[in-house]
Amino acid sequence: MKKIAVGILGATGTVGQKLITLLADHPWFTVEEVVASEKSAGKPYGSVVAWRETQEIPKKIKQLEIKKVFDSLASKLLFSSLDATVAAAVESHYVERGHIVISNAQSHRLHSQVPLVIPEVNGTHLQLLHGERSRGFIITNPNCVVMVLALALYPLFKNFGLEKVMVHTMQAVSGAGYPGVASMDILGNVIPHIDGEEEKISREILKLFGTYCDRKIDFAAIKVSALCNRVPVFHGHTLNVAFTTVEKIDSEALVAAWKNFKGLDLPSSPSNIIRYFDDCHRPQPRLDVNFGNGMGITIGNLRPCSILDWKCTILGHNTVRGAAGAAVLNAEHLVANGLHT
Amino acid sequence: MKKIAVGILGATGTVGQKLITLLADHPWFTVEEVVASEKSAGKPYGSVVAWRETQEIPKKIKQLEIKKVFDSLASKLLFSSLDATVAAAVESHYVERGHIVISNAQSHRLHSQVPLVIPEVNGTHLQLLHGERSRGFIITNPNCVVMVLALALYPLFKNFGLEKVMVHTMQAVSGAGYPGVASMDILGNVIPHIDGEEEKISREILKLFGTYCDRKIDFAAIKVSALCNRVPVFHGHTLNVAFTTVEKIDSEALVAAWKNFKGLDLPSSPSNIIRYFDDCHRPQPRLDVNFGNGMGITIGNLRPCSILDWKCTILGHNTVRGAAGAAVLNAEHLVANGLHT
Amino acid sequence: MKKIAVGILGATGTVGQKLITLLADHPWFTVEEVVASEKSAGKPYGSVVAWRETQEIPKKIKQLEIKKVFDSLASKLLFSSLDATVAAAVESHYVERGHIVISNAQSHRLHSQVPLVIPEVNGTHLQLLHGERSRGFIITNPNCVVMVLALALYPLFKNFGLEKVMVHTMQAVSGAGYPGVASMDILGNVIPHIDGEEEKISREILKLFGTYCDRKIDFAAIKVSALCNRVPVFHGHTLNVAFTTVEKIDSEALVAAWKNFKGLDLPSSPSNIIRYFDDCHRPQPRLDVNFGNGMGITIGNLRPCSILDWKCTILGHNTVRGAAGAAVLNAEHLVANGLHT
Amino acid sequence: MKKIAVGILGATGTVGQKLITLLADHPWFTVEEVVASEKSAGKPYGSVVAWRETQEIPKKIKQLEIKKVFDSLASKLLFSSLDATVAAAVESHYVERGHIVISNAQSHRLHSQVPLVIPEVNGTHLQLLHGERSRGFIITNPNCVVMVLALALYPLFKNFGLEKVMVHTMQAVSGAGYPGVASMDILGNVIPHIDGEEEKISREILKLFGTYCDRKIDFAAIKVSALCNRVPVFHGHTLNVAFTTVEKIDSEALVAAWKNFKGLDLPSSPSNIIRYFDDCHRPQPRLDVNFGNGMGITIGNLRPCSILDWKCTILGHNTVRGAAGAAVLNAEHLVANGLHT
Repeated sequence: MKKIAVGILGATGTVGQKLITLLADHPWFTVEEVVASEKSAGKPYGSVVAWRETQEIPKKIKQLEIKKVFDSLASKLLFSSLDATVAAAVESHYVERGHIVISNAQSHRLHSQVPLVIPEVNGTHLQLLHGERSRGFIITNPNCVVMVLALALYPLFKNFGLEKVMVHTMQAVSGAGYPGVASMDILGNVIPHIDGEEEKISREILKLFGTYCDRKIDFAAIKVSALCNRVPVFHGHTLNVAFTTVEKIDSEALVAAWKNFKGLDLPSSPSNIIRYFDDCHRPQPRLDVNFGNGMGITIGNLRPCSILDWKCTILGHNTVRGAAGAAVLNAEHLVANGLHT
Repeated sequence: MKKIAVGILGATGTVGQKLITLLADHPWFTVEEVVASEKSAGKPYGSVVAWRETQEIPKKIKQLEIKKVFDSLASKLLFSSLDATVAAAVESHYVERGHIVISNAQSHRLHSQVPLVIPEVNGTHLQLLHGERSRGFIITNPNCVVMVLALALYPLFKNFGLEKVMVHTMQAVSGAGYPGVASMDILGNVIPHIDGEEEKISREILKLFGTYCDRKIDFAAIKVSALCNRVPVFHGHTLNVAFTTVEKIDSEALVAAWKNFKGLDLPSSPSNIIRYFDDCHRPQPRLDVNFGNGMGITIGNLRPCSILDWKCTILGHNTVRGAAGAAVLNAEHLVANGLHT
Repeated sequence: MKKIAVGILGATGTVGQKLITLLADHPWFTVEEVVASEKSAGKPYGSVVAWRETQEIPKKIKQLEIKKVFDSLASKLLFSSLDATVAAAVESHYVERGHIVISNAQSHRLHSQVPLVIPEVNGTHLQLLHGERSRGFIITNPNCVVMVLALALYPLFKNFGLEKVMVHTMQAVSGAGYPGVASMDILGNVIPHIDGEEEKISREILKLFGTYCDRKIDFAAIKVSALCNRVPVFHGHTLNVAFTTVEKIDSEALVAAWKNFKGLDLPSSPSNIIRYFDDCHRPQPRLDVNFGNGMGITIGNLRPCSILDWKCTILGHNTVRGAAGAAVLNAEHLVANGLHT
Repeated sequence: MKKIAVGILGATGTVGQKLITLLADHPWFTVEEVVASEKSAGKPYGSVVAWRETQEIPKKIKQLEIKKVFDSLASKLLFSSLDATVAAAVESHYVERGHIVISNAQSHRLHSQVPLVIPEVNGTHLQLLHGERSRGFIITNPNCVVMVLALALYPLFKNFGLEKVMVHTMQAVSGAGYPGVASMDILGNVIPHIDGEEEKISREILKLFGTYCDRKIDFAAIKVSALCNRVPVFHGHTLNVAFTTVEKIDSEALVAAWKNFKGLDLPSSPSNIIRYFDDCHRPQPRLDVNFGNGMGITIGNLRPCSILDWKCTILGHNTVRGAAGAAVLNAEHLVANGLHT
C-alpha cells in the first residue's frame, strides 16, 4: 500500500514533535509537510525546532522546509497540534479548502457537527460526517485527562451504567507544553489548579459517552466533578477516581470489564488497552506510563468508597495516548472507514 | 515561671528532632531527658542523631546522654514520637509509673479513655481524664492529614454541620520519616497508596468532632472517604477536599467561618489559624507551608462541586502542625488546664 | 536615625521581590519608590507582581504605585535588579541625574571606574569613587557564583596566595529568574551549560581580588576555570572547588583561615561569614542554604587533590548573598562610608 | 546455537533486575538460575522481588525458584551483582568450584590476577587468564563512573596520551541501589560526597588503561582527581571532565578521535559507542541517557580550559553501560574468545 501523505500543523511544538516521532515509521502515513508560525517558515525543520524527544529527529523531517499556517498545502490529511489561540481560525481555513483536519486542539471539540472520537469508545460518532468524502471536515480527540478517564470508565459505563464520577488529577508538566510550567513553580511543589481543565473534563466525557441520533450527539447524563493539580512528574497523568454505577456490582465484575476491553485492529490501538494491577501501590507514572507503548492505560487500587461506590487509581500517557497518539489513532480510524479520500 | 522539665521518647527520629527544635526556646518547657532505642543509649545525643533540621541542635541537647526506653525517668511530662511498632508498650509502661505521655503515635488514639485532642477543636475532651492529677495518662494528637483536615472542617462542622467529606491527599515525603520513602520510588513519580492512611483519616476525624458524654466520646456521624497519595514534595500535605454541609449556605458564609476561626491563648496556637486565598492557584506547599510558623493552615480555590456541594484545596505542615507542633500544643493545653502536675 | 528613602529599579522581578523582602524591616532604609517596565506602570505594586516570596508583600509596598523606568525619581539611592537587556541604559540615565545606583546587574561590573564590591572582601575599592558625593555613580556586586566563591577564597588568597582555581557549579533554578528555567528542561535532569556564566566567573573574581592603585583596579593574577551546570535545586549554588595556594600549607591552616574570617559591623553582614563542616556530606543546599539568614556561606569536605592542592565543597544562597542581599550590604557599606548623601 | 545457561548471584537487587531484563531476549545466554540471600531462597522469584524495571519480569524468571548463595549451581557462567559486603566470599566460593564469575562488584577489581575489562578498551587483558579453561576465574567490570569516563577518555589516551584528568560527577540515585538514597536526602538537593567513590575512580581507570606484561597489568601513569556528587536524577551519571593530553592537539582532533571510536562485533556493543554534540547544552540525562540502548555514551560542550587543556561534559547510563550491561558485554567477550567452556 502506498503511504498516505500527511501534513502537521504546529509541527515544532511538544505535541507536533511527538506526532513526528509516532509517524516516523508508521505503516500507513508519511509526513510530507510541516507547518508552523511565520517566524519559522522557510527554514529547514531541524534548524528551528527545540527538539525535546529522546528519539532523534527523522532525517527526512530534519530537512523539510517549514511552511507557514494558511499556506496552500498538498496533503489532504492534516494533523493539528496548534495552540488553542490560533487553532480555530487555521483549522477552519483548511477545512474550507477541502482538507481533513485531525485535531488535538480543543477549539472544535464541542461543536455539534464535529466528531469528538476515541475509536475504541465511540468510533461510530463518525456518523456525524454523513459519509462525507467530498468536503473537508474536522475530527478531534479529547483533552488528555478525558482520554485516560474515558478509556477507564467506558467499559463500566457500557456494562453497568455510570451515575457519578469524581476525579482528582495529578498531572505531568509535559501536559502544559514547552516552556510551559516554570521550574520555580513546580520543583518540590504542587499547583492545585489548571486553567479551564475541570470544565473540559466535565463536558467532553459526556459527548464521548453520548449517543448519535438524528445528525447530532445526545450527551450522556453523568454527574462529573473534577479537581485538577499539577505535580512534578514529567510524563503521565495520575487520576484518583471515585464513581457510582447504575447497576450495583462487585469488584470482580469491574475488573473483568476492564480486562475484557479489547483494542481495535488498527496500528496504534494496543491489543490490551487496560492493564489492571492487584498491587495497591500501582499504577505509578515512573513504572507504568509506557504501557502499550504509551497507548494503553493502567488501573489499580480498586476499593469500596463510603460516599460513591468505588475508588481507584488510573494512569495514562498524556502526550502519547492523551494527545499525539490519540490523533494518529483517529487518522487510522478514518482510513479504516474509508473517509480519508 | 520555672520551666517544666520534659523528656522525649523517640528523640532521634524525624518528629523527635522537630520536637527538640520547637522546644528549644519554649517559654514553658525545657527538655531534660532524651530517650531512644538501646543502640543509642549512653551516648551524647549529638554523637548519635542523624540531624535533619535546618536549625542546629541546641547546645544543651547535643551533650545530653541518651537514656533507653523503659529506663526510669525524672520528668513527669513525656513527649512520645516513638515508632508505631514500640509506642504502645513503651507509652503504657510510663503511664503505669505515673507519667503523662503526650503522644504523636497512633497506638492509643482510638482508645476510649484516651483523649484525641486538637485544643482549638475539641479541647474539652480532656474531660475524659476526670481532672486526673494523681495517675499517669496519655493524650494524643491525630494523624498529620487528619490534623490539617480537622482544622479546615471544624468551623464548617460547628456552624453548618457536615454530611459527607471526600479527601484526596498529596502528601510530602517527610510524613514517612527518615529514611522513609526511597528516592527511586518518588523522584518524578506519584505513589497512589499509603499504608493504613485512608482508614486513619476516616476514623480519627469522627472522634475529634465527637461529643463528650458520660465518660466517653460519642463519635460524629459524617461520611468520610479518603484517597491518599505520596508526591515528591518535602514538607506540606496538600488536600483536595469536597464536602456536603447540612445547612445549605453560600461561599461567603464558608469563607467567613474560616476567617473567624481564632486561635487559643497558648504559645504555639497561631492567632489566625486559617488563611484563605482568593487566588485559585493557592495554597501551594512551596509558598504556604510555613504559614503561622507551620502551625496555621491555608485554604483556597473554593468552588461549587456538582456531586458534593463544595470543593477546595487545603494545605498544612505535616511535621509541625501535623506532628511535633501538635504535641507541643497539647502539652500547653494540659498545662493551661492545670493537668500537668 | 531617620531612615533613608530608596527606590527599586526592576521591582517586580525575582531579585526585586527579594530586595523588598530584605528591606521590609531594614534599620536604615525604607522603600519609597518601585520602578518597573511600562506595562506595569501606574498600577499598585500588589496588583501586578507575581509574588514568589514565602513572606507576604509588605502592606505599604503593596499599595505603592509603580513608576516606569526613566521616570523622574525622588530617592537618591536606587537599587537596580534590572534585566541585563535594559540595565545599562536605565542605570546610566539615573546616574546622569545624580542618583547612586546599587546594581545587581552585570552591565557595569567590569567598567574601570565602577566599584565591584563585596564589603568584607574589597570594601576599599570604594576609593574608585574618590569620595564622590556630588555626582551620581554606580556600585555593583558580583555574579551569584562569584560572590560565594570569593567569600570562600578570599581568606585563603589574603593569607596564602592563590595560583589556580577550578570551580564546578551545580546551580539552583532561582538563579535564572522567573519564569526562567522550564520545568521540562530540569525535572530529574542536569543542564551542563549556563550562557556566559563561566566567563563572568573567571573575570569578576580577578577584579574583586585586585588592588586599587592610581584610580583603577589592578586585577589579581589567578588562573580560574569554571564548569557550570544547572541542577533541580530551588535555592543555593553548590560549588566543587579545587585550588592551588602560593604558600604551601596544611588543612588546619585553611580551616583556620575560614574560621577567622569575620563579618563587618553592618546590619546585613553576618558575624560568622563562613561555617566549616567536618562532616564530608556537607554542605547541602537543603540543609545549609540559609546559614546566616542566607548571608553566610558554608564549606566542607576539604581534602587533598592530586592535581591542584586541595578540593572542597562550597555553598551559598544565590538570591540572598548572591544577589539582593549583596546589594543591600553594598548600600550599607556606602552609608557607613558616608557616600550616600 | 544452543544458548548458554547462566546464573545470577544477587538476582533480586537493582543490578540483578537489570541483568534479567537485558538477558531476557539475549541471543547467546539464557538465565536458568537466580540466587539471592537466605531469606528469599526457596520461593519463586516473582513472589519475592521488588521489581523496579519498567519492562515486566520475564514469565520464565517469575517462576524460577530462588537458590541461596553457596548452594551448588549447575550453570558454569555466573553473573554477580552481589553487595560489596558479601561479594568477595561468595564469588571466591564459586570460583573454587570451577565457575566463571562475571562480576559487577568491586571486591576483586584490583586483584592482580583478575581482569578488569571493558572489551572495547582493554579486551586483551584477558591474557591474565592464560587461556584458562579448566579452572574457575573472575572477570570484573569497573565502577559506573569509571566505565563512562574510560570510554570517553580511551580514544584520547590511545591517540594523544593523557597526563591529568579532573572529573566532577553528578550521579543519579539509581547508582546507589534500592532503597539506597532516602528521598529526604536528595529531593531538591545535592549531596557532595559518595563513600569510596573518588578513590575507586582514581585507581580503576589506571588499571583499565594499563598494559599487560608478564602475567600482570602495569598501571597507566595519569594523574586523576575526582569530585563526586549525588543529584536528584534517576538514571545517568553526568561528568564534567577537564584533562591534559600529552600531545597537544586541536578540538577537531579530539572530536575525530571520539567519532572514530567503534564498537566490537558483540551483541551488546553499540556500533557507535560515542555520540558527540555540537550543542553546548548537551548531553543531558533526560534526553541522552538511552543513547545506544544505554550502552553508548554522549559527549558535548568541549572547550579550552585555562588550567588543564580541555573541558567537556560526558554522560552515560549508570545501571546499563555502567553495571549490568557492562557485565553482559564482558560475558559476550569471554564467549567470543572461547573462554567460557
